[in-house]
Amino acid sequence: MANVFHQRLDELDELLVDMARRVGEAIEHASAALLAIDTEAAAAIVAADEDLNALQFRVDDRIVELMTRYEPVATDLRFILAAVRISVDLERMGDLAKHVAKSVLLRAPAPAIPDSLREDFAGMGQAAVRISEKLVRVLAERDQMEATQLGLDDDVLDALQQRVHDQIPDLGYGPQVAVDAALLARFFERFGDHAVRISHQVVYLVTGDVHLDRS
Amino acid sequence: MANVFHQRLDELDELLVDMARRVGEAIEHASAALLAIDTEAAAAIVAADEDLNALQFRVDDRIVELMTRYEPVATDLRFILAAVRISVDLERMGDLAKHVAKSVLLRAPAPAIPDSLREDFAGMGQAAVRISEKLVRVLAERDQMEATQLGLDDDVLDALQQRVHDQIPDLGYGPQVAVDAALLARFFERFGDHAVRISHQVVYLVTGDVHLDRS
Repeated sequence: MANVFHQRLDELDELLVDMARRVGEAIEHASAALLAIDTEAAAAIVAADEDLNALQFRVDDRIVELMTRYEPVATDLRFILAAVRISVDLERMGDLAKHVAKSVLLRAPAPAIPDSLREDFAGMGQAAVRISEKLVRVLAERDQMEATQLGLDDDVLDALQQRVHDQIPDLGYGPQVAVDAALLARFFERFGDHAVRISHQVVYLVTGDVHLDRS
Repeated sequence: MANVFHQRLDELDELLVDMARRVGEAIEHASAALLAIDTEAAAAIVAADEDLNALQFRVDDRIVELMTRYEPVATDLRFILAAVRISVDLERMGDLAKHVAKSVLLRAPAPAIPDSLREDFAGMGQAAVRISEKLVRVLAERDQMEATQLGLDDDVLDALQQRVHDQIPDLGYGPQVAVDAALLARFFERFGDHAVRISHQVVYLVTGDVHLDRS
């Protein structure tokens, strides 16, 4: 019984890792589509978000099954509750990648970001991809060091968002361009925040230290 | 045993209702502070967000206690899992009210929104307050009709956000004003989205119908 339970628990873990991988792919492709004005890729990201939502339903089903069929002890229970929250954050990260893709579709054939901000957005895309890669390892290996490193990449994302905001008053473009840039920068910044929240949940599972990001 | 369990479960319900009430007060005061450039009120909202976070910790503790001490059956379990997600959404709604308050502090003594958008933002504040009031009733009474009505107020919020966005190209103010307005409109819109998600969770509890908002 205990073995079957832990096998099912491992599968829950794998579902979360799978979600994190897909979220990483989504933000990677969304960032590339943003820079290349690639509407085909953008449309594919929007469509793929459905698969991510379906995965979250599978996570939910697995959680209910684990809790009703077995009687998880405190440690396993802590993991299951964390899994509920982690899947919410992962689903939201997928939404944010989708928002980036939708901005591409909305403005095409024009670019959604002005030329002068291309470099900053390329940097945000790269930081978001690094964060996703680390998030997969944090979830798969419960690696605390990776959680710390992920936090540093999130700092990069925050700094780049600030850079974009600082440039907005002097961009020399219309207000629509400024708003697009500000919202897109916010999507990337929120993407990082959710990853940090997840990594704190995992660190809490490993160490018991409450270090939740509720700012 | 069962009675004690259900009493503890009711207390969990009350904690969520308490969170929803405070979130409602926060968005009401934040909307008023936004229109009146009331930095004192804005600072109080930022400070009060800590109480909300503390309440979420109490919800978490209660959930772990309920699940380890008692062995909840499927129906109760469904409620407990929903409570995990609901508290995440409520905490996020509190954050969004705090973001509105912080915008007031950032731009004061200037207004964070231009005069020409005052009416739209007043409307968004009113819709957000109506949503919060309905949310309290949805949570306290598991009232499905209120959940439907709440959805209509959320439509109002979405329409007002769209109105703000449509006016942005012709506002005649600088890009910073446009960005502030777009972000503030987004905070209100997200506030509504989280309330809708919560009400769907409650409807799911009552009817078993999956109608989760994962768009």
